[in-house]
Amino acid sequence: MKINALVAQHADQPIKAGTVSQRDLQAADVSIDILYCGVCHSDLHMARNEWGVSQYPMVPGHEIVGRVKAVGAEVTRFAPGDLVGVGVMVDSCQTCHFCQQQEEQYCEAGFTATYNGTDKYTGGTTWGGYAQSVMVDEKFVVSVPENLAVEAVAPLLCAGVTVWSPLRYFDVKPGDRVGVIGLGGLGHMAVKLASALGAEVTLFTTSPQKGEDARRLGATHVVVSRDAEQMAAAKTSLDVILDCVAVPHDLNPYLATLKTNGKLVLVGIPDAPHPAADVTPMVFRRLSITGTSIGSIRETQEMLDFCGQHNITADIELIAGEEIETAFARMLRSDVKYRFVIDMQRTRW
Amino acid sequence: MKINALVAQHADQPIKAGTVSQRDLQAADVSIDILYCGVCHSDLHMARNEWGVSQYPMVPGHEIVGRVKAVGAEVTRFAPGDLVGVGVMVDSCQTCHFCQQQEEQYCEAGFTATYNGTDKYTGGTTWGGYAQSVMVDEKFVVSVPENLAVEAVAPLLCAGVTVWSPLRYFDVKPGDRVGVIGLGGLGHMAVKLASALGAEVTLFTTSPQKGEDARRLGATHVVVSRDAEQMAAAKTSLDVILDCVAVPHDLNPYLATLKTNGKLVLVGIPDAPHPAADVTPMVFRRLSITGTSIGSIRETQEMLDFCGQHNITADIELIAGEEIETAFARMLRSDVKYRFVIDMQRTRW
Ligand SMILES: [Zn+2]
Ligand SMILES: [Zn+2]
Ligand SMILES: [Zn+2]
Ligand SMILES: [Zn+2]
Repeated sequence: MKINALVAQHADQPIKAGTVSQRDLQAADVSIDILYCGVCHSDLHMARNEWGVSQYPMVPGHEIVGRVKAVGAEVTRFAPGDLVGVGVMVDSCQTCHFCQQQEEQYCEAGFTATYNGTDKYTGGTTWGGYAQSVMVDEKFVVSVPENLAVEAVAPLLCAGVTVWSPLRYFDVKPGDRVGVIGLGGLGHMAVKLASALGAEVTLFTTSPQKGEDARRLGATHVVVSRDAEQMAAAKTSLDVILDCVAVPHDLNPYLATLKTNGKLVLVGIPDAPHPAADVTPMVFRRLSITGTSIGSIRETQEMLDFCGQHNITADIELIAGEEIETAFARMLRSDVKYRFVIDMQRTRW
Repeated sequence: MKINALVAQHADQPIKAGTVSQRDLQAADVSIDILYCGVCHSDLHMARNEWGVSQYPMVPGHEIVGRVKAVGAEVTRFAPGDLVGVGVMVDSCQTCHFCQQQEEQYCEAGFTATYNGTDKYTGGTTWGGYAQSVMVDEKFVVSVPENLAVEAVAPLLCAGVTVWSPLRYFDVKPGDRVGVIGLGGLGHMAVKLASALGAEVTLFTTSPQKGEDARRLGATHVVVSRDAEQMAAAKTSLDVILDCVAVPHDLNPYLATLKTNGKLVLVGIPDAPHPAADVTPMVFRRLSITGTSIGSIRETQEMLDFCGQHNITADIELIAGEEIETAFARMLRSDVKYRFVIDMQRTRW
């Protein structure tokens, strides 16, 4: 079946409306009419082939919210009309150690990416959420609470779970002190989720003007990272820091803000490594520099349920599909608060 | 009271026999006749003022084994004649979070070092174990099992517990796969202790000729780290790596040998940071680069008891006190298997 989609035909051509072939409904499949799809930074990198792994034509998008249109014969958890989400993964081996313990994001065979992956049925490419519909194995579909603003749920599927996973893995509890570096798509979700978990949140930013927003989103403290006095005042105050900045930067000033046993968690991958970190504080205060990759399906569902209970969504700016290149250009200038979301119903196909 | 000791009078003068004043026996004190003292790399750095914090005169040494000569009125755990040890710490605040949970090595006020620290009673300098006796608060004295070769116990007090602490903190269990980088004073203890804990040990070394020794000490696999094929064969095989090499080196080839969730634990502090590590594997496989500092008194006692049960000691070369400068020179060439220990009874005062 042909579906309407926003298609990247080449690394140096703008994304435009077009059509791609969708696989037939399989027994385990959920066919989803897409309502909204968030615009992740990785969509931009992939559309432009900046990581050198892009296949064209490509339909980006892995922050998908929609309603179930049809389900395959073996599907038990979803029915037509259900509000559902799809994130970064649409398949995994299901047999390795990590799949067995419901951590498909670390699947030893590599998970199947929502787009630019290999469709196990057709052998062709997987198509993402910049489209009118998507076909996904029910194991990789999550339920979306009906009480939330649907359009603002979309970014939870990648940005949300990417910061939720480390908060849970490193066991952030009420009263813990959590740092967040950078107030962008990931960072603004980290502030919201960490504060809703009961943590006292410190936002680090290079932009003093972001302080007001950070406090509105849940931060108790705002530290301008270029201000040595403010950084010194934050010394040895934090249990966990989520580093949401994907450009190389000096980690040492942040290590200094961690308590003994503190963890600096990298959730963004810069083009080049961060400069070398000093070993002394890592040894003398048993600090860790670590990273986490997106989150599991189980964690995604857990986060969506938590967001439903706490009425948490992303701060977004809605666009029509034909505005995607303008949105990319603005993202490159960090000119978005805090995530673009494509409204499929407003998009001209 | 004056005691005989090996004294560094200045950064550029050789260590020589001399005398220093020992404090009077306090109510909580244990007075120890020293039998043996291990020669730690940090003794060399400190004697030479290579870390810029040395105070002279200095009596180095923090791998001390001896017999109790006398105890203060309040001492309950030791009696004259007991075989005891003293490691890197001789005091701490006892009130902070870390002291309260028996992790004095992370005392927020900073622990009192066995030498070159500040004696809380006299306000003067603490004297280490290159001496005929030492006076230590009983809380910082541990019991040494009588069944071990006493002279070979000494290095357990610093080198031993420094690798024991991360093995325990990161919960190494039977069947776990542990890497050890470097077969020196720390590394040879790491191989012995990790294998006695039931782990399958891989030793990484730049010296192929160390393979036989490593296997004798308990390693199952020996990987010559300069051999790209051998490194590739070790890919994603390890749960925890103890990096015992205190010179800057590329961490990326070792990150590649860690399984998802693996931990690279730095236990040595190089003069300059290790080169920047790649972020990608840290994120995609949730790896940690971390460090630990020596070990607590509780861990030191636990390790000594474990060594007593498993008949583990260090591989040592005994010297007399007057050979210390020769020993330092050989240590700089890594020409020791694997720790020098000063025999106080053979030393001419
Ligand atoms: Zn994404
Ligand atoms: Zn798998
Ligand atoms: Zn030492
Ligand atoms: Zn303390």
